[in-house]
Amino acid sequence: MGQTVQIGKLALLIATLDEDELEGFRPQLQTVDYCQGKAGSMNMQKVISAVETAAKRNSIISEDVYRETHALYHAILEALEGVTRGQIAIGDMMRTVGLKFAVVRGKPYERSGEGEWLAVAFYGTIGAPVKGLEHETMGLGINHI
Amino acid sequence: MGQTVQIGKLALLIATLDEDELEGFRPQLQTVDYCQGKAGSMNMQKVISAVETAAKRNSIISEDVYRETHALYHAILEALEGVTRGQIAIGDMMRTVGLKFAVVRGKPYERSGEGEWLAVAFYGTIGAPVKGLEHETMGLGINHI
Amino acid sequence: MGQTVQIGKLALLIATLDEDELEGFRPQLQTVDYCQGKAGSMNMQKVISAVETAAKRNSIISEDVYRETHALYHAILEALEGVTRGQIAIGDMMRTVGLKFAVVRGKPYERSGEGEWLAVAFYGTIGAPVKGLEHETMGLGINHI
Amino acid sequence: MGQTVQIGKLALLIATLDEDELEGFRPQLQTVDYCQGKAGSMNMQKVISAVETAAKRNSIISEDVYRETHALYHAILEALEGVTRGQIAIGDMMRTVGLKFAVVRGKPYERSGEGEWLAVAFYGTIGAPVKGLEHETMGLGINHI
Amino acid sequence: MGQTVQIGKLALLIATLDEDELEGFRPQLQTVDYCQGKAGSMNMQKVISAVETAAKRNSIISEDVYRETHALYHAILEALEGVTRGQIAIGDMMRTVGLKFAVVRGKPYERSGEGEWLAVAFYGTIGAPVKGLEHETMGLGINHI
Amino acid sequence: MGQTVQIGKLALLIATLDEDELEGFRPQLQTVDYCQGKAGSMNMQKVISAVETAAKRNSIISEDVYRETHALYHAILEALEGVTRGQIAIGDMMRTVGLKFAVVRGKPYERSGEGEWLAVAFYGTIGAPVKGLEHETMGLGINHI
Repeated sequence: MGQTVQIGKLALLIATLDEDELEGFRPQLQTVDYCQGKAGSMNMQKVISAVETAAKRNSIISEDVYRETHALYHAILEALEGVTRGQIAIGDMMRTVGLKFAVVRGKPYERSGEGEWLAVAFYGTIGAPVKGLEHETMGLGINHI
Repeated sequence: MGQTVQIGKLALLIATLDEDELEGFRPQLQTVDYCQGKAGSMNMQKVISAVETAAKRNSIISEDVYRETHALYHAILEALEGVTRGQIAIGDMMRTVGLKFAVVRGKPYERSGEGEWLAVAFYGTIGAPVKGLEHETMGLGINHI
Repeated sequence: MGQTVQIGKLALLIATLDEDELEGFRPQLQTVDYCQGKAGSMNMQKVISAVETAAKRNSIISEDVYRETHALYHAILEALEGVTRGQIAIGDMMRTVGLKFAVVRGKPYERSGEGEWLAVAFYGTIGAPVKGLEHETMGLGINHI
Repeated sequence: MGQTVQIGKLALLIATLDEDELEGFRPQLQTVDYCQGKAGSMNMQKVISAVETAAKRNSIISEDVYRETHALYHAILEALEGVTRGQIAIGDMMRTVGLKFAVVRGKPYERSGEGEWLAVAFYGTIGAPVKGLEHETMGLGINHI
Repeated sequence: MGQTVQIGKLALLIATLDEDELEGFRPQLQTVDYCQGKAGSMNMQKVISAVETAAKRNSIISEDVYRETHALYHAILEALEGVTRGQIAIGDMMRTVGLKFAVVRGKPYERSGEGEWLAVAFYGTIGAPVKGLEHETMGLGINHI
Repeated sequence: MGQTVQIGKLALLIATLDEDELEGFRPQLQTVDYCQGKAGSMNMQKVISAVETAAKRNSIISEDVYRETHALYHAILEALEGVTRGQIAIGDMMRTVGLKFAVVRGKPYERSGEGEWLAVAFYGTIGAPVKGLEHETMGLGINHI
């Protein structure tokens, strides 16, 4: 893959695995900055906002620099394409999500000029707003920062 | 999650992890049927075809029953939404993919009436048709069968 | 077409024709289970919900089995692609719909292994939220169940 | 519906019904101009082209006036949204269509200022490029001309 | 371009340039009818409504003829595809717009049979609902009327 | 707008205006780096490739750094959403484009931390592959670099 650090794979694993399962990946996780959180909602705004707030509170991106917010926003949207598969909408289409998410910041490439990139991953469930009427879903977005 | 077997998570792990990393998940993998493969192309038809062929050759779905092909096809398309993020196209948009994929068939729900479901996962790279000008991508599709 | 029962065509006719016009198709209608209803709204949730409620109340699908709800939901969404043509949204895009719908469940294929399938059809009007500023619209979705 | 002539419904019926079934609708069909044809292909260009050629050869639209070609083109694309449900693509997504189509031109509204409108309807099958691995599909597009 | 009057270019310039910059284009502007306005909102309905209201108040289109509303509505939607780039949504995706818009009506083609066409252009900013966290955006839609 | 340099507006003007019309904007153009070119094709790959090649040959972006290619690619795609309005496809949908394009690189924001951004603009015609059967189209994409 020519990538020394797979930020997308790491974001996926943080969002998908439980603490025990993640144990074996600790050495790889030390090569990046990351945060994680949860978002359960029929409201897409709340999902986007939960990721942005977590990334800023944990200093994964700088709150004061628009270009970092812009990079994160587009990585979130790309990840939500995977979650929603066709239309970035949840409540409007009578469905709800319960998601774990991870934001990873790191240097995937050996060439120093490539600098830092962001990965956003979601994993959880999507379905009718009735407990149990749901299946798994996930999404990954990558952007340069 | 109310699911006894997370077929989506297992498909993700098969597509994403190498053999060593997958070792700890062997007990979970024994609860499902699955196959895996690779597809690298600028041609979306070839990617779809590679997954369908692998699933049929490995008897994950029946070749003779259209409803199984139909279930798999839509799971593949949903997974490709995550891979392509916006338009299910690769070569036409001057990009190429190098993907590992997994197809998992199992019973995610305790209620016996829910029967069998399929999960299709892709993980790999997407980018310009030039070595190294690429980043990670992934997608997951789930369907009842 | 290799199909013995055209569930999609029947759903279309139920949604489109009035009682008199439908008379000649009674023999074909006796080969399937179906229900019909109306949905007029600027709110997509209400349209989806009206179809799901009608299908469950009339026992076209089972209320207790998620796989049947899942099959119906995706058939509804596919039919709404035809109705909305581009973005599955109505009120957010300043338009309203007045629709008749039909849900048909039957066995379209001779091979017994193909089992049962669902067809969802909508027919009616879409337009500005002003009486008369509207034109016809329709959509059809098909799924295995 | 406030419409005196339902050009969309007529287009649908022409595309969907066989000659016998269409018999009862002859009086309504005499209030509009229409043509019909067939298109079977994995190539979207050929489907679009078949409809345009039929509409021009049968003088449903004028070959020499761009605004009529423009009106028809967008009505075709809207109908194809219903046929393809999500991405206007067939062969690129490893699927093929066998379609009957109808183009109807008429005056749907009583107000004389509303003038003429076009309806394009498709009905047939979509599926894998293997005989029998397919299900019904349809679409309707409406435009002012 | 074979067009004697570039209604799209004129709409773009009205939406983009300030009064001084627009001075040199006055002769071209005298060949068309146009209006302009502003719309700042997280609510897509309000943006669409602002353009429709301006076009009707300034008699660019007739309020009483649906075909003119229909032509304008689709030109607005096409322009919003450029503004939103992928999903016609703003507030639902946690973003807000501040737009100048122009509606131009004219005869772009020499052939008299081509008649009148509409151009709708937007220019302004799109971004997070926080002052300064935004970048430029624009869109253009064209339709026959 | 809080932006000192409007790279999007400048890209639009370069793509849209002729040399004489552009004269008055020379002082603003001296605050940015830019290049321009033409692309006429039914092949989306060629359009994307023409912009990338021009940007690299004119040193607007560095050929050796993937993050710059990545930033440009997404700005091109966003601009093509405006050009194609709904599906990023041309020949597959039986239409062709004749476009002028501009790539502008500059610092739109006063805050030094915001760094450099890219704007890509297209202006020209889209229509049937027959001379004269076409109307204007345009698109703008913006990205941090």
